Amino acid sequence: MALPRLLRPLLRGLPPLARLGCGRALHRAAPAPAPAAPDFNSFVTRTNTCGELRSAHVGQEVTLYGWIQYQRQGLFLVLRDFQGLTQIIIPQDEAHAHVKKLLSNAPVESVVRVTGIVIPRPPGQENPKMPTGDIEVKAETAEVLNSCKKLPFEIKDFIKKSEALRMQYRYLDLRSFQLQYNLRLRSQIVMRMREYLCNLHGSKRIPCALEGSGQVLLSATESSAVQAAPHGWRPGQIDIEMSFVDQAGIQRLIEGLLQYSWPEQRGSITAPFPSMTYEEALANYGTDKPDTRFGMKIVDISDFLRRSDIQFVQDALSYPHGTVKAICIPHGVRYLKNKDLESLKESAKSQFNQEIMEIICRPDGSLKSLLTKFLGEKQQSELIQALNMQVDDVVLLAAGEHKQVCSALGSLRLETADLLEAAGLVLRDPTAFHFLWVVDFPLFLPKEENPTELESAHHPFTAPHPSDTSLLYSDPTKVRSQHYDLVLNGNEVGGGSIRIHSAEQQRFVLEKVLKEDSEVLSHLLEALEFGAPPHGGIALGLDRLISLIVDAPSIRDVIAFPKSFRGRDLMGNAPDYVTPEELEPYHIQVSWLLAEKEAKKN
Amino acid sequence: MALPRLLRPLLRGLPPLARLGCGRALHRAAPAPAPAAPDFNSFVTRTNTCGELRSAHVGQEVTLYGWIQYQRQGLFLVLRDFQGLTQIIIPQDEAHAHVKKLLSNAPVESVVRVTGIVIPRPPGQENPKMPTGDIEVKAETAEVLNSCKKLPFEIKDFIKKSEALRMQYRYLDLRSFQLQYNLRLRSQIVMRMREYLCNLHGSKRIPCALEGSGQVLLSATESSAVQAAPHGWRPGQIDIEMSFVDQAGIQRLIEGLLQYSWPEQRGSITAPFPSMTYEEALANYGTDKPDTRFGMKIVDISDFLRRSDIQFVQDALSYPHGTVKAICIPHGVRYLKNKDLESLKESAKSQFNQEIMEIICRPDGSLKSLLTKFLGEKQQSELIQALNMQVDDVVLLAAGEHKQVCSALGSLRLETADLLEAAGLVLRDPTAFHFLWVVDFPLFLPKEENPTELESAHHPFTAPHPSDTSLLYSDPTKVRSQHYDLVLNGNEVGGGSIRIHSAEQQRFVLEKVLKEDSEVLSHLLEALEFGAPPHGGIALGLDRLISLIVDAPSIRDVIAFPKSFRGRDLMGNAPDYVTPEELEPYHIQVSWLLAEKEAKKN
Repeated sequence: MALPRLLRPLLRGLPPLARLGCGRALHRAAPAPAPAAPDFNSFVTRTNTCGELRSAHVGQEVTLYGWIQYQRQGLFLVLRDFQGLTQIIIPQDEAHAHVKKLLSNAPVESVVRVTGIVIPRPPGQENPKMPTGDIEVKAETAEVLNSCKKLPFEIKDFIKKSEALRMQYRYLDLRSFQLQYNLRLRSQIVMRMREYLCNLHGSKRIPCALEGSGQVLLSATESSAVQAAPHGWRPGQIDIEMSFVDQAGIQRLIEGLLQYSWPEQRGSITAPFPSMTYEEALANYGTDKPDTRFGMKIVDISDFLRRSDIQFVQDALSYPHGTVKAICIPHGVRYLKNKDLESLKESAKSQFNQEIMEIICRPDGSLKSLLTKFLGEKQQSELIQALNMQVDDVVLLAAGEHKQVCSALGSLRLETADLLEAAGLVLRDPTAFHFLWVVDFPLFLPKEENPTELESAHHPFTAPHPSDTSLLYSDPTKVRSQHYDLVLNGNEVGGGSIRIHSAEQQRFVLEKVLKEDSEVLSHLLEALEFGAPPHGGIALGLDRLISLIVDAPSIRDVIAFPKSFRGRDLMGNAPDYVTPEELEPYHIQVSWLLAEKEAKKN
Repeated sequence: MALPRLLRPLLRGLPPLARLGCGRALHRAAPAPAPAAPDFNSFVTRTNTCGELRSAHVGQEVTLYGWIQYQRQGLFLVLRDFQGLTQIIIPQDEAHAHVKKLLSNAPVESVVRVTGIVIPRPPGQENPKMPTGDIEVKAETAEVLNSCKKLPFEIKDFIKKSEALRMQYRYLDLRSFQLQYNLRLRSQIVMRMREYLCNLHGSKRIPCALEGSGQVLLSATESSAVQAAPHGWRPGQIDIEMSFVDQAGIQRLIEGLLQYSWPEQRGSITAPFPSMTYEEALANYGTDKPDTRFGMKIVDISDFLRRSDIQFVQDALSYPHGTVKAICIPHGVRYLKNKDLESLKESAKSQFNQEIMEIICRPDGSLKSLLTKFLGEKQQSELIQALNMQVDDVVLLAAGEHKQVCSALGSLRLETADLLEAAGLVLRDPTAFHFLWVVDFPLFLPKEENPTELESAHHPFTAPHPSDTSLLYSDPTKVRSQHYDLVLNGNEVGGGSIRIHSAEQQRFVLEKVLKEDSEVLSHLLEALEFGAPPHGGIALGLDRLISLIVDAPSIRDVIAFPKSFRGRDLMGNAPDYVTPEELEPYHIQVSWLLAEKEAKKN
């Protein structure tokens, strides 16, 4: 959905990509000086890129290299490179017959060199939508460096093609302005992040504390694990690991990092980011990654209904974690059709096994619902007040176990937002960036298959909350962790934790709480015993973060060579079948599934 | 050999690592402004690092975190972090009994927090070898954050231990100043390289031209190949790929990159780097990676001996590529023992199947050799002149096929240099950095197993030298390539080429010259047909380059977590045995060698 909107400014003439400076947001460390504009023309044989010629260049002889974007009747063509477009005038006189023939006959997307003189466009023919729209280049000499055979489809149509086709011809897809813009912006953001970490704060490029940290070992183990998927070029992510740091230290570091690297054209972001406990996030938004750009928060109405005679409410409240909650959809009557409400209720039923009741606020302010006959006037008015209901609002109500009710209403909140926006309401400002820390996760969760046993909510190396350390030994289910997630507009874009640095505590967690065999991690425990410092870290999911910044519908739009959903490289057709002979040196055999074996035979 | 020498300044007190600024060498692009010193104390709970306190801090209360390097009789201790060492005075009064007990009892290498007051050292007790040697910190409060159990050996002894032990306890090894220094310098050099490429020249982080390059595909194919070895954290290397560039453009880019990122404390390097053809390198140095820091070049003496009656010389010269060559070892008589000369000759015999003759220049200037009786006085004097022989010099002479003779003498030249240096002569200045481009390699070589067939000298995508393009179709053995190697002090630290961008030429090379099935590369050929631009690239071997810059004996000294020679991770004991059940989801079986299978059973 987002891409077409983003493409609009492109059609109006994209600003030259060289100008995409990253923001120099407020930061308490020494501000970096503004870097000089990069020089794109050193080391290559052009004099200029296709994006930089202006009126001031008129009269100069220039040499441009690029792709033929468009050619018309042997009169002119548009040359494109990664910086922009320049109009080339094809000479018509006899002395340049060779140049005319060559440029007129070269197929679209052929690579050419053009040398010529910059001239002003004739009065009235300037193109204000094009950065180079005041000039054109009259070709003197030209050379076709590589002719292009007929394309499977036009470059500008790529975006409409199937994902598989785009991936197969990714090198053509990458010629589009939008992907070039995304990848260049990504590169600049990552470079700014490196400046912040390395130059301003002296981090080393090695993603672990060098100071004898136990984490070093943990990471080494993870890195040696089987790498099942083929690697793309993208870094997994940005991994930060620090000694002598607490949760607040990591959070301030990341806030500074994002402010420093935030691209200017996306406004600015303010820090510190708000923080919310996991319990609050679940209770108010029904998720651990709330989208706080819009309201419709979950409201607990248990107390208002506790004295009612509604059977399913009473049933729900009789259980230990029983609750009644609701979300209020502003103008729901106006924007939601009956079938929308039905599909919302069905979704809650099928995904969460949760029944949903609706309450509608009539134009006269009275409530329409199956429940009203069970509620006195005072109760109704209390409910209207608690939910801040206005005329035409629709309330969705759920009763049951706390987590199930919250999750169902949290999911309905997002589905409703989609429906309202599809109907024309703008709920989630696409230019707003709501960062949020979610903290105080539970350290352990009951295992789904056997709720009397515990498993780590994140991983077994997460440190307990300092206030809950003693609970570790008495009631581990109540221990909060020092895990933190960074959420942006409802998406998890980072996560990390303070790690356990005491071998004794780590061994207790592994053996006594999780009932794991600590022997497989004996090298980690030994490293902790040799003076590992207190340490913690965080990883940022760059692909997701950048895709949110550029408002791309998929992370594949911010990765040069993504793999398909199934980990396949559709361009190089990898992974491919490998012969048993090729596998022999690795002492590996492929165990074909019988069906595949048969298919391969035929 | 090199490490102990490098350690000497460390013993005198290493300069604080924060000061390791990288050089801002001359460069024609806009010079980057000097970055502010990084702030190591933001986000963590210390006030200062252990390397930064000076007389100016006297009277301040500070909080330091670090490892106990040394503790003496409950009176004082030395605290160490990644920035340096600070002496801590343990309080002896009753009010601080708890602090005294805690700091006196904490084992060496325990992690502690110390808060105290900076005081001047008593007059005469200052330590000028220590950057913090003017002050000490009188502890007020302290906390043991992690106690260290008895180490397998002392940190300072690590360097003497076996490689396997160092790798097993790499997290302890990494606490040494030398490794910290190497890795921090590496990080700074790489950061400067990124600044040069991204900020000054607008490169993207994606290691391939985005402009629809065929190389994109090539790289994609390579990247999808089976990754047999487990990955460490080091980047493979720096990969650069550019459109519309020629060999000179790539060379100037790399020279600028190295000048820009060169660390100040290693002097400066001048560009352009000298260039040498492969043929010259072979003829003069017997290798494609000449160490030009010293002489002893190979001299062709075929013409002087052509008229002699020496049978083996005549035999050699009668063959097509027959030659007689020699190297002259200055003061060889003084520095080489008889057994040295014998071992040199044996080495040439065993490695190259090459006989070596020796000629010695006596104190009276006459020659001593089995050859002299076959040579007239004029020939002897011509030989002395051609080889620039002085009294006490030793000449090693070889006759045979050109490449074999050159390779043997090139190898002897390096072995001799080792022997001369072991005997006390300094031939190769360890502070000198001799960069050299080696160019004009042959594009194809005869296959070793079948010399009538050709294989690529580097890879089949390397473009032919522009002057030799027509030879591709008439006499491919004579075609020089556009491959270039970057050599530093006799080590290959980079290599690359201009690639073929014409599908037609690429298909000819694959099918007609190399007799390969071009079908497996059909996606590459197709990409070339869709308007791939002329392009080329280079890869720098960062591990080797950095190890030469810091004068480390092994690349493992500049990698945080290197694998052992056999690709094993000795710390995490990976790779490890995996059960058949764990492999099932991957459809893989391990084919145990019978012997291993038996061993595993027992």
